[in-house]
Amino acid sequence: MNTIDLLSHIINEKLNTLGYRRNPENLYLPIEYALSFGGKRLRPMLTLIACEMFGGNIEDAMNVALGIEMYHNHTLLHDDVMDKADVRRGQPTVHRKWGENSAILSGDAMLILAYRYVQRTKSNLDKVLELFTETTLQICEGQQFDMEFESRDDVSVDEYMEMIRLKTAVLLACSLKTGALVAGASDKDADSIYEYGIQIGLAFQLQDDILDVYGDEKVFGKKIGGDIICDKKTFLLLTALKKSSSDDIAEFNKWIGNGDAVPCDKIKAVTALYDKLEVRKDAENLMAQCYKKAMDCLENINVPSEKKTILLSLTEKLIGRSV
Amino acid sequence: MNTIDLLSHIINEKLNTLGYRRNPENLYLPIEYALSFGGKRLRPMLTLIACEMFGGNIEDAMNVALGIEMYHNHTLLHDDVMDKADVRRGQPTVHRKWGENSAILSGDAMLILAYRYVQRTKSNLDKVLELFTETTLQICEGQQFDMEFESRDDVSVDEYMEMIRLKTAVLLACSLKTGALVAGASDKDADSIYEYGIQIGLAFQLQDDILDVYGDEKVFGKKIGGDIICDKKTFLLLTALKKSSSDDIAEFNKWIGNGDAVPCDKIKAVTALYDKLEVRKDAENLMAQCYKKAMDCLENINVPSEKKTILLSLTEKLIGRSV
Repeated sequence: MNTIDLLSHIINEKLNTLGYRRNPENLYLPIEYALSFGGKRLRPMLTLIACEMFGGNIEDAMNVALGIEMYHNHTLLHDDVMDKADVRRGQPTVHRKWGENSAILSGDAMLILAYRYVQRTKSNLDKVLELFTETTLQICEGQQFDMEFESRDDVSVDEYMEMIRLKTAVLLACSLKTGALVAGASDKDADSIYEYGIQIGLAFQLQDDILDVYGDEKVFGKKIGGDIICDKKTFLLLTALKKSSSDDIAEFNKWIGNGDAVPCDKIKAVTALYDKLEVRKDAENLMAQCYKKAMDCLENINVPSEKKTILLSLTEKLIGRSV
Repeated sequence: MNTIDLLSHIINEKLNTLGYRRNPENLYLPIEYALSFGGKRLRPMLTLIACEMFGGNIEDAMNVALGIEMYHNHTLLHDDVMDKADVRRGQPTVHRKWGENSAILSGDAMLILAYRYVQRTKSNLDKVLELFTETTLQICEGQQFDMEFESRDDVSVDEYMEMIRLKTAVLLACSLKTGALVAGASDKDADSIYEYGIQIGLAFQLQDDILDVYGDEKVFGKKIGGDIICDKKTFLLLTALKKSSSDDIAEFNKWIGNGDAVPCDKIKAVTALYDKLEVRKDAENLMAQCYKKAMDCLENINVPSEKKTILLSLTEKLIGRSV
């Protein structure tokens, strides 16, 4: 088992034996269920890897790592309620199984449990708590922007990038930085690894936008074209609209917001516009820029380069997914 | 201005100038709105009073006091979503004004802001955080029990008392104990004031159950008979059912769960059963027991008795409301 798989295994073991279950059962069962969907456990892994990179003991970062994973699953649970999503990873969502009130309340309890784990951190607790709280508030802001974008038709690419920074990137950055803080990294190094996380997070989301259109369903794990079907304002769509001639706009307008469109026709037509306007290349170029910035940050971190290999290989795994 | 009004004034001033508002505005406006409903600001007042009672500086307890008030309003906001309540204090609820998704998300942000204030506490932060987190988790448990009781017909009076302990009393107790902790009270005194809060909280909720049936609408501030109309399993109803003959049960069954009943007839009939079964006296007796226990706790606290007068006078105000 390589280090990454081993860490993921350790985190899953810990999550399965957290022992937070008390009465009433029906408050805690939805939490267990939400955590059982699995997933890559990417965020807690980043925390442990950063802690280890700066010479810390991963056991000391375990509570904050688990807290961040609990928090992440809280956001998924409440986002599913807000999106009225029926399915997550092939299973019925919590609100489909237990009802919306249960999903709201058990989601609240998950946020509290997240704090319970984070506040058990022994080293540098003040900074860890401050960062965690600021990050979770920013994620609410990102989710609010995301919801508002649905009904706006003047969203700029810059606004989109700020939204994904808030909604996705800051939690990856916070995961890394809390690990660094627990290990006692210098402020400068902690800030560098935070910025590394931001850039990787942006690249990760851009890749997700690309994969939604150009991915292989088997590798991607979701249906292709989902963003197109629901008129999601992704980097691809916003960039395409910006580059469009009036004829292209007219063609887009045939499909966007058209509830009667046959899904596969819509996916085909919008993808054809993306191809014509070459927005995939724009997204890949921006991804490459983010990746380059991330590597510069990592370069600046004052630890021997062999200490950086696990983080690098996880990053490769993350944003080197086959397109 | 007496001390209690002065404290309430200070807390309202602080709440109005918290300066948590950032972008996007629509995440923060519902929070401002939710806080603007007012209310007695009872919980933060208890924190400040307890801090002062144990010789602390109320400024040191201000952050935890504000955090608790923010948290309390978070629970009201999410409870209103779960109850599908249209009105709070004569104003449309947040989800009626901004929609349910906004109410969920801004409510989440309020829970995070609550933590932000609580974690700014300078003195005894570990204990304050642990108590706050345990309390908020218990309140989720209380809310879950409350929701489950709606669809159960075998709820016992003991279960009801445990539910109101979790849903109402522990936050009053936590408010007092955090104030004591900030002031550096001994463990024994901090535990005594916690138990004082529990007993006062139980008495407070029992009084609320009584006022809902026997109160004066002008003083109570809510319509009389609301609990009866929605078949709420209060202390009065559960005690009445326990004391009922089979004829009484038959009479109850005519009204409970009867959606066609004329509201004022239902209130009249159920109140007549309560009168016949003398459950108001039972509630008042239990209230008196709780009050007695609270006074015993206060007696045991090792501070000069003149230090206890503000808490006593607030308690009087609280559970001496005219019936």
